[in-house]
Amino acid sequence: MAEVTQVSFSEQLRQEAGTAWDEVARHRFTDELAAGTVERAVMAKYAVQDHRFLDAFVVLLASMVAAARSLDDRIPGCQFLALITGRENTYFVRTFEALRISEEDRRTTPPTEAQAKLESIMRDAVASGSLSEILAVLVVCEWTYQSWGERVQVETGVPFYCQEWVDLHRGPYFGSVVDYLRGLLDREAAGLNTDEKAKVRARFMATLAVEKEFFDSCYEK
Amino acid sequence: MAEVTQVSFSEQLRQEAGTAWDEVARHRFTDELAAGTVERAVMAKYAVQDHRFLDAFVVLLASMVAAARSLDDRIPGCQFLALITGRENTYFVRTFEALRISEEDRRTTPPTEAQAKLESIMRDAVASGSLSEILAVLVVCEWTYQSWGERVQVETGVPFYCQEWVDLHRGPYFGSVVDYLRGLLDREAAGLNTDEKAKVRARFMATLAVEKEFFDSCYEK
Repeated sequence: MAEVTQVSFSEQLRQEAGTAWDEVARHRFTDELAAGTVERAVMAKYAVQDHRFLDAFVVLLASMVAAARSLDDRIPGCQFLALITGRENTYFVRTFEALRISEEDRRTTPPTEAQAKLESIMRDAVASGSLSEILAVLVVCEWTYQSWGERVQVETGVPFYCQEWVDLHRGPYFGSVVDYLRGLLDREAAGLNTDEKAKVRARFMATLAVEKEFFDSCYEK
Repeated sequence: MAEVTQVSFSEQLRQEAGTAWDEVARHRFTDELAAGTVERAVMAKYAVQDHRFLDAFVVLLASMVAAARSLDDRIPGCQFLALITGRENTYFVRTFEALRISEEDRRTTPPTEAQAKLESIMRDAVASGSLSEILAVLVVCEWTYQSWGERVQVETGVPFYCQEWVDLHRGPYFGSVVDYLRGLLDREAAGLNTDEKAKVRARFMATLAVEKEFFDSCYEK
């Protein structure tokens, strides 16, 4: 008899995504970051555009915390909110300084199409009021980053903005955040009907597609 | 000529509250806590019932973070969320141990009327979707606690659950939290019409009244 393996909902979505997942988790940008060979202009574009998500991402995560089912489900989300508005925010501030990107530069650089799309995905998920749809977006954002964060080998002597960006997306703490978000999504999935599951799947795939576009856009001149 | 003093909206509400404010900020419970003379049964009742708010309070604060107007406005809220689900939550856990209150005891103790009322106020403010009404509740909860926290003199050698509960509600960090919440409320008030201001005022006064009832209820046999 064949062994029946229980595949979690989040794992199922990742498997369904197929190569779309690897296109993010194995993107050129992530390898160049770890090797320290990422061009200054590419890194600058990435940092300016990625920092733009912070506000929408905080809204997304805070909305998830408010919509979660119990205090225990909220606590890790609250701790992660503090990290992304603390350590991760100072990372951006120091990176802008190192790359000599002024506040004026940031303000006058228009959002890229990919940035605007991904930000819309975040804000639309919040507006849906659906905990599972919010979680779908969060899971893709964090789990794809963990996938490349754990995969790459950082060369010694790379600039801090390469080293620290990898360090923020790997290791036991970040792993616990990804497990937490996936666990919440898997638990919610058990109570969803076919239509609701389809909506969650659509959010998952749309977020994944735009994550790739976002990395690609950093190489556009 | 008389000097025109600009009184902030939050200060105006506190002044309007009059003695109702002092009934919370100068409540017997707060003095007994600082003196270490609070009876075990009173402290136990307080701790069990107060810990019940943590979940609703996290929802209230996370909803405020999500509804705030900018990333800068969200950041201190995120850091405070981490504190109340971290340091403040472990305070309760250690207090329950010291007072030999089991999880079973906590589960089987029904909420007091005052606890249920205050929790409803928090959840109703969230349901209103109004940032200023959410802030009104948060401001009363934190500012009244700061008022007594800064006022009382803690006797040496009091139990840790007295000392630490005072320490969590005074000092520069807690002061910055109160200033932050009041600042957000004052800023929102500038854009409110008379009807909206009346709603905010009603939330403020209702919260204050129940804070007193809550302290009183800890002395009921």
